[in-house]
Amino acid sequence: MNGAESLVHTLLACGVDTCFSNPGTSEMHFVAALDRIPGMRCVLGLFEGVVTGAADGYARMTDRPAATLLHCGPGLANGLANLHNARRAHSPIVNLVGDQATYHRPLDAPLTADTEGFARGVSAWTRTATHAATVGSDCASAVQAARSAPGGVATLILPSDTCWDDDGAVGTPLPVPSVPQASPDAIQAAVRALRSGEPTLLLLGGMALRAEALDIAGSILAATGARMLAQTSNARIARGAGRTSIERVPYPVDQAVATLAGVRHLILVGAPPPVGFFAYPNKPSSMAPPDCQVHVLARPEHDAADALIRVAQALGAAPITHPDAAPRPAPACRAVTSEAVAQSLAALLPDAAIVVDESVSFGRAFFPGTHDAAPHDWLQITGGAIGCGIPLATGAAIGAPGRRVVGLQADGSAMYTLQGLWTQARERLDVTTVILSNRKYAILLGEYQGVGANPGRTALDMMDLGNPDLDWVRLANGMGVEAARADTMEAFTDLFSQANARPGPFVIELVI
Amino acid sequence: MNGAESLVHTLLACGVDTCFSNPGTSEMHFVAALDRIPGMRCVLGLFEGVVTGAADGYARMTDRPAATLLHCGPGLANGLANLHNARRAHSPIVNLVGDQATYHRPLDAPLTADTEGFARGVSAWTRTATHAATVGSDCASAVQAARSAPGGVATLILPSDTCWDDDGAVGTPLPVPSVPQASPDAIQAAVRALRSGEPTLLLLGGMALRAEALDIAGSILAATGARMLAQTSNARIARGAGRTSIERVPYPVDQAVATLAGVRHLILVGAPPPVGFFAYPNKPSSMAPPDCQVHVLARPEHDAADALIRVAQALGAAPITHPDAAPRPAPACRAVTSEAVAQSLAALLPDAAIVVDESVSFGRAFFPGTHDAAPHDWLQITGGAIGCGIPLATGAAIGAPGRRVVGLQADGSAMYTLQGLWTQARERLDVTTVILSNRKYAILLGEYQGVGANPGRTALDMMDLGNPDLDWVRLANGMGVEAARADTMEAFTDLFSQANARPGPFVIELVI
Repeated sequence: MNGAESLVHTLLACGVDTCFSNPGTSEMHFVAALDRIPGMRCVLGLFEGVVTGAADGYARMTDRPAATLLHCGPGLANGLANLHNARRAHSPIVNLVGDQATYHRPLDAPLTADTEGFARGVSAWTRTATHAATVGSDCASAVQAARSAPGGVATLILPSDTCWDDDGAVGTPLPVPSVPQASPDAIQAAVRALRSGEPTLLLLGGMALRAEALDIAGSILAATGARMLAQTSNARIARGAGRTSIERVPYPVDQAVATLAGVRHLILVGAPPPVGFFAYPNKPSSMAPPDCQVHVLARPEHDAADALIRVAQALGAAPITHPDAAPRPAPACRAVTSEAVAQSLAALLPDAAIVVDESVSFGRAFFPGTHDAAPHDWLQITGGAIGCGIPLATGAAIGAPGRRVVGLQADGSAMYTLQGLWTQARERLDVTTVILSNRKYAILLGEYQGVGANPGRTALDMMDLGNPDLDWVRLANGMGVEAARADTMEAFTDLFSQANARPGPFVIELVI
Repeated sequence: MNGAESLVHTLLACGVDTCFSNPGTSEMHFVAALDRIPGMRCVLGLFEGVVTGAADGYARMTDRPAATLLHCGPGLANGLANLHNARRAHSPIVNLVGDQATYHRPLDAPLTADTEGFARGVSAWTRTATHAATVGSDCASAVQAARSAPGGVATLILPSDTCWDDDGAVGTPLPVPSVPQASPDAIQAAVRALRSGEPTLLLLGGMALRAEALDIAGSILAATGARMLAQTSNARIARGAGRTSIERVPYPVDQAVATLAGVRHLILVGAPPPVGFFAYPNKPSSMAPPDCQVHVLARPEHDAADALIRVAQALGAAPITHPDAAPRPAPACRAVTSEAVAQSLAALLPDAAIVVDESVSFGRAFFPGTHDAAPHDWLQITGGAIGCGIPLATGAAIGAPGRRVVGLQADGSAMYTLQGLWTQARERLDVTTVILSNRKYAILLGEYQGVGANPGRTALDMMDLGNPDLDWVRLANGMGVEAARADTMEAFTDLFSQANARPGPFVIELVI
């Protein structure tokens, strides 16, 4: 058994059965092993950002790692932005990167790069294999590292000789460490704050945003009068009719500060303290009031649901019941606005949909307007590295077959990783992508005005995707995905309903 | 004057007047400064790999740096692969990366990443600005570093407060260090080898591949009977009728070893020792015979032309004259093969064309078949990070207006950075891109067979771009570039001639 074969056997033994890949020459023995050993679903991406973003989407929907297969330092580099997002989402990923043979590396052939150096900034665990004999155990360690709470990117770099040498040995799957529990002191501090009668806010992130944890958080609010919010950007939120709804810390600094004003106790449940996405002159970096007390109930690696249960028990909070769902609104038929699209989403979102939200500026009304839609999961861009939406949707569809994926996709961000549409076509994935086509980096135009100047020609040209206009119908068709354009809400309603009712991917270019 | 304004003024004072950009929120003050201060040509790319590859192409044609404008660590990450190619090409680039404000970075906002860590592997020089007051001098140092022989990527990271704070000062342009000359010992060693009567090979890279240097090398060959070769992958080679032609070290290891067999003296002129692009089991890593003596006449940072002149003088070599150019062949009208395309290129290449060759497997006949085409420059993928072709062509067209750029572009590689076509449309660049559409990672199919197995379904699926087929006419049209498909050499001849005769970009999908 060569090293590559030991790797594939070990992945399968560890429960990793999906591999998002874009291989190169140095990975041919790995590809051959995947070919010979049954059991691994291999999904090709035509750019590494698609591969890593899909692995993130898969992890968010399965809570298990997929493997990637990337080609040397530059191939890894192409996947780094979406690994950065995955890192912020705490997504488990076994990130496999082929590389120059151990003895060839010192010769500095053209493709030789600092692969480990590239990997470190996005990885919770990084190792370069040294011998075929230990690739199996390296792989088992990588899976363990990826799955250790709160989940992370484990990068295993595989010099080609460690794959082709013949003394490979299957690695023994290693136990996944149990998720640590919040300390009794943390529980007590949260309970004290909640009983203080002072304004108290629960800030939820990570696993605290799944349906059961949200219900428990809701029961705590009902018992205490506290408020709760989710982080601004979240890996996955369970939402929709019959679930406890939650708003998010607003993205704009002024709104975030206003939303948190007056809070005396901030209880963190799987979320870091709220900070501005960017700094701005003469605005605060921290969104919480300076005099508010911060209590860490659960760090991202803690069992957030358990911590909430223990707090609810200490408070004697009664389980909440959900009222009957409000009737769905009618789809909107007025002008194409963020609110109108939100209304149509609330009306038409399929049951158990997975919403991938990279809607950036235009999408401000989407989240607040869809609390009462059919039950669904809502996935966001967690690390601010645009170009995650189409890949996330691709991986989510593979991780959750039978559920419709709806991508709400800003056009500028979509251009970063549009190659993912081809993978959706090849794998016949049930993804409806709504391209929000304003032909601008609209968020930047807003930010630019914050700089205090009216943009001239040079500035406008750097924030404008027009001249020439992108044609998303042709782009999608060029990758084998059916597509159509909507200029009105009526046309959008028709296309969106039809797209969701048919198998396979569809792109709607919604001109906004 | 704020830091951003001091930056723009310093760039212009240092002769940097072109900025390839993909800005984000943290760069808004930089964009505002570019807007207010006249003199900088700003070129938007819709993905950072386009931005950095274009800066590489610009540098190769002008021998001067452009600036980039990238957004934080993930934006830099998206540009790393083409910065890796630029590093291998020794292209001067002033790589400017906006980032979190100095005081905001410790709060670890979502987009915060190890920007310096990402930069280091591709940069000859890396610095993070600390104050607005020193941004100008930092920038002057960056330009100096980029322009120091042999040229490199100088990355200056700009926390947003160093751009918006008000005590900016224009940096004084710093002298570009003179290019070091080869040592007299190196000259003598080369002359001794060339006079030895033993088989001697000059291996040329970098500036040794410009027209005058090649003529001098040619005179040395005529005087001594030595041979010469270029590296396998080169930043720029001057070629065509009336110039000294040169072959390259073949890419396949067996062919490279055979080509270098029997060489007793290997004289390196701006090239590193020849090594395999990858290692293979039971094949050598070094392409030169083990018993051959290696003489370093000029390292990449040395003045290669000067070294060749001094060797030629010591040998008393007479200047070579070029015979009248052979008549151009007729365009091919047989089946679509690599040789047929080469023949048509030899027939039809416009005078002073810039050929960007990312033809990968199908292009094996292109270079040997075009020695007698109209005079042109030939640019290659230098670092093996695919996805450089369309961006390189974009930047070369901006760096050398009035010259037609011809991209010979493998389809799989084209998919990595297809967004560059949009920039070609916006800037109305005279680029003809020939997509060599075999709908496969054909090079990998060849490599896979080297592994000794027939590919099964899983392996084939990972090397196949069909199912569904990419439609390059629609993809190009979707980005505002006119395009057409050719299935025969006759159709190719017509389209290629027409495309080169009209202004602006055109894409030909050549089905191969």
